[in-house]
Amino acid sequence: MENLMRFDVTNERNLTMLVDFYELTMANGYFSKEIQNKIAYFDMYFRRVPDGGGYCIMAGVEQLIQYLNNLNFTNSDIDYLRSKNLFSEEFLNYLKNFKFECDVWAIPEGNFVFPNQPLVIVRGPVVQAQFIETMILLTINHQTLIATKANRICRAANGRTVMEFGSRRAQGYDGAIYGARASIIGGCDSTACTIADKYFHVPAVGTMAHSWVQLFDTEYDAFKAWAEVYPDNCSLLIDTYNVLKSGLPNAIKVFDEVLKPQGKRPTGIRIDSGDITYLTKKCRKILDAAGYPDCKIIVSNSLDEHIIRDVLSQGATIDSFGVGERLITAKSEPVFGGVYKLVAVENNENKIIPKIKISENTEKITNPGFKKIYRIYDKESHNAIADLIALNHEVIDESKPLEIFHPIETWKRKTVTNYYVKELMVKVFEKGKQVYESPSVLEIKEFSKNESLKMWPEILRFENPHTYYVDLSEDLWGLKQDLLHKCIK
Amino acid sequence: MENLMRFDVTNERNLTMLVDFYELTMANGYFSKEIQNKIAYFDMYFRRVPDGGGYCIMAGVEQLIQYLNNLNFTNSDIDYLRSKNLFSEEFLNYLKNFKFECDVWAIPEGNFVFPNQPLVIVRGPVVQAQFIETMILLTINHQTLIATKANRICRAANGRTVMEFGSRRAQGYDGAIYGARASIIGGCDSTACTIADKYFHVPAVGTMAHSWVQLFDTEYDAFKAWAEVYPDNCSLLIDTYNVLKSGLPNAIKVFDEVLKPQGKRPTGIRIDSGDITYLTKKCRKILDAAGYPDCKIIVSNSLDEHIIRDVLSQGATIDSFGVGERLITAKSEPVFGGVYKLVAVENNENKIIPKIKISENTEKITNPGFKKIYRIYDKESHNAIADLIALNHEVIDESKPLEIFHPIETWKRKTVTNYYVKELMVKVFEKGKQVYESPSVLEIKEFSKNESLKMWPEILRFENPHTYYVDLSEDLWGLKQDLLHKCIK
Repeated sequence: MENLMRFDVTNERNLTMLVDFYELTMANGYFSKEIQNKIAYFDMYFRRVPDGGGYCIMAGVEQLIQYLNNLNFTNSDIDYLRSKNLFSEEFLNYLKNFKFECDVWAIPEGNFVFPNQPLVIVRGPVVQAQFIETMILLTINHQTLIATKANRICRAANGRTVMEFGSRRAQGYDGAIYGARASIIGGCDSTACTIADKYFHVPAVGTMAHSWVQLFDTEYDAFKAWAEVYPDNCSLLIDTYNVLKSGLPNAIKVFDEVLKPQGKRPTGIRIDSGDITYLTKKCRKILDAAGYPDCKIIVSNSLDEHIIRDVLSQGATIDSFGVGERLITAKSEPVFGGVYKLVAVENNENKIIPKIKISENTEKITNPGFKKIYRIYDKESHNAIADLIALNHEVIDESKPLEIFHPIETWKRKTVTNYYVKELMVKVFEKGKQVYESPSVLEIKEFSKNESLKMWPEILRFENPHTYYVDLSEDLWGLKQDLLHKCIK
Repeated sequence: MENLMRFDVTNERNLTMLVDFYELTMANGYFSKEIQNKIAYFDMYFRRVPDGGGYCIMAGVEQLIQYLNNLNFTNSDIDYLRSKNLFSEEFLNYLKNFKFECDVWAIPEGNFVFPNQPLVIVRGPVVQAQFIETMILLTINHQTLIATKANRICRAANGRTVMEFGSRRAQGYDGAIYGARASIIGGCDSTACTIADKYFHVPAVGTMAHSWVQLFDTEYDAFKAWAEVYPDNCSLLIDTYNVLKSGLPNAIKVFDEVLKPQGKRPTGIRIDSGDITYLTKKCRKILDAAGYPDCKIIVSNSLDEHIIRDVLSQGATIDSFGVGERLITAKSEPVFGGVYKLVAVENNENKIIPKIKISENTEKITNPGFKKIYRIYDKESHNAIADLIALNHEVIDESKPLEIFHPIETWKRKTVTNYYVKELMVKVFEKGKQVYESPSVLEIKEFSKNESLKMWPEILRFENPHTYYVDLSEDLWGLKQDLLHKCIK
């Protein structure tokens, strides 16, 4: 075995080297060509909403800030890179003394975001702006994916409690921890992930596993023991043997014998297998008849938004859903396809030169230039009408009507009056210095819930939602056309 | 904002509290009932191979060992738990002085593993053996999922190079880092994930992104600059504008003008979009005609085992595949459903009392008792014939014929002669002390490749593979039947 330091899941974490190797070969290339300090602009954006949905929920900005604040190449990083025989000493020396100098803008977490609009914009020396690509994508892609999935699931639950239960099936430790964080942002009420509660102050919940029941001689003994330990939080898992023949009768017996004499009420019963609709209806009737109409019915077992909607439409009587693997991995579509593209550079006179990447596929052509996003709201309903991506210097005069149009099918036009606008992006770094403080996770969740009230229900449909308008300003549209025609020549 | 310590992606990592909250409520319950030191046996196993495959590749044991070696509740963990008003001071005091005392067995990484056999067995005080459930599942589920997916993809590539390119679309930072590790175990040749190279000594590779090409005035300038910086590793991305009209001609021009005069050969060209079959065939012909038959063709762009097999069957001329999001998230089936079940306890006389969990679904009934696994090999071909799960005290006499039978359809029987057996599981912890050292990742990869030679090709098919036999010994089968009949009574 080599005598080198081994990576340990419990090590201190320096994620600076969590980077695609080509960012390093390119960075070294910029140095060799002496263009490392050329100012570049990159947009991070996505092209498609997962699961055929109409919106995504932005998440991950707080972790992105932490990463950018802690960029730091250790001596062992430098030694490792030197051993590759690819990098110049000048470049390695630069890394050794690395100091982050970029400007960064982001859409704050919890916002409703849409395809083809920048979620993050970076401006700075190309060697730096390029380097941070991997972690920007990794961070925003992951948490936005899970927050969006959680939001769909919570919408299906229609006001009922949703608990995130997925840690054991997450894709890695951060998948569990930040997945729990993003789930709360997306609308979940609580999580089973204890460390997420400790650090993000989001409520952790949990009762018993089948093993508790198995460990005792009988199910009744197991329930009795639990009720004695947790008379104020007595929630029993009733499907280890047989829900209706054994689990529920034993639970009610224990409620009657242990809780009732103390004047306590049971919290709930949980079912983790079998036919949810049938069992919950039966259990509800039996619990009500036994004098426990306040005992909640909790279900778990491979749930997602479709199953939840389906069993509720069949009249299942459920108070609370525990959602595991299908949420924590976004199982139905586990990839969030955010990309990071060069959109402009500055020339020697600090003039912005927009850049475009063309493609056979019209939707894949990038929007060039240094931009900002306006969200346009109706003055009466306060509903969001459209987003307008504009060049950064553009200002909208809210006192005047605003004509917006589809960026490809340009004959689709609309003139908006009686509106106001809000700029979506905030500056989070100014020349490498953090200038934005993230709210707490519960504040973000609350913010996101309020934002949802400003979205037309048509946008929020599970399938075939109305496509929210993300338009380009006249000037940006014109610039794009110019560049396209020049490229094609 | 609260004045509490905030979790930071760059913090030192103590994953002790990455635990489902119910493990803690149960643990506290065991204390209250004074059964915390009852000796329990848990099996971790899975029930189904993802993607309809015939086998999985075991991975994650090294990280599991690290976690178990570092279980440690800090004062702030204890304070946090106390604030929940659920846990007794006696229990909190126990956590404060926590010392891991369990025995742990595991199947070493890289092994071919199959449904319903234990991958990990834990024996120890129930309070401890229960507590570590979440991290055992999280660790083994994630890495086994990705190693298995990687193995399928590498089999489709049929000896061609496969590079793991997925960091930016991984589900969290560990998803990228340990996903890269598991990809190599599964058979990938290299990864783009730099930190995985630094810590696991698996080769990191990478060249350029589209942004490098865009940054220069022309594609030719960009390629020329690259060839000048990396004359010995000149691999060019040729699809920023148009592969055949612009990318490839510019690449060949640069090979001719920059590399040839230096006596250098190009490494490769990469295509990241468009029709792979058509483009690679065209490119191969043009490169050959231009005098570069040794220039490799590398493709990327949402590849998986099915697309790779498909384009190769159409005659695509590809030397190397870069596989991203569909590998790093196991997109087609992103959940590995490992479970952790109580299978036995010891009574006060240290006698093992087997436990069973029954289910309507026959496949979901657990295998009771403290067990071990024999893999049976044919003495001539050295191919694996079957696995036999036996009670831990059972010994197979290889000199005698061995009758094995299907554990449910028991009339399906076979007598094996001319065989030898190997015990699959190794002891990794003895009363809380590590007694096994993980090989390096490349050693595991090599081991796994050798193991694949001992598997019948019928097991390795992508679809409808032959089901590898995982049978129960006569004694174990009998024990299970006894318990089942007792339960049903």
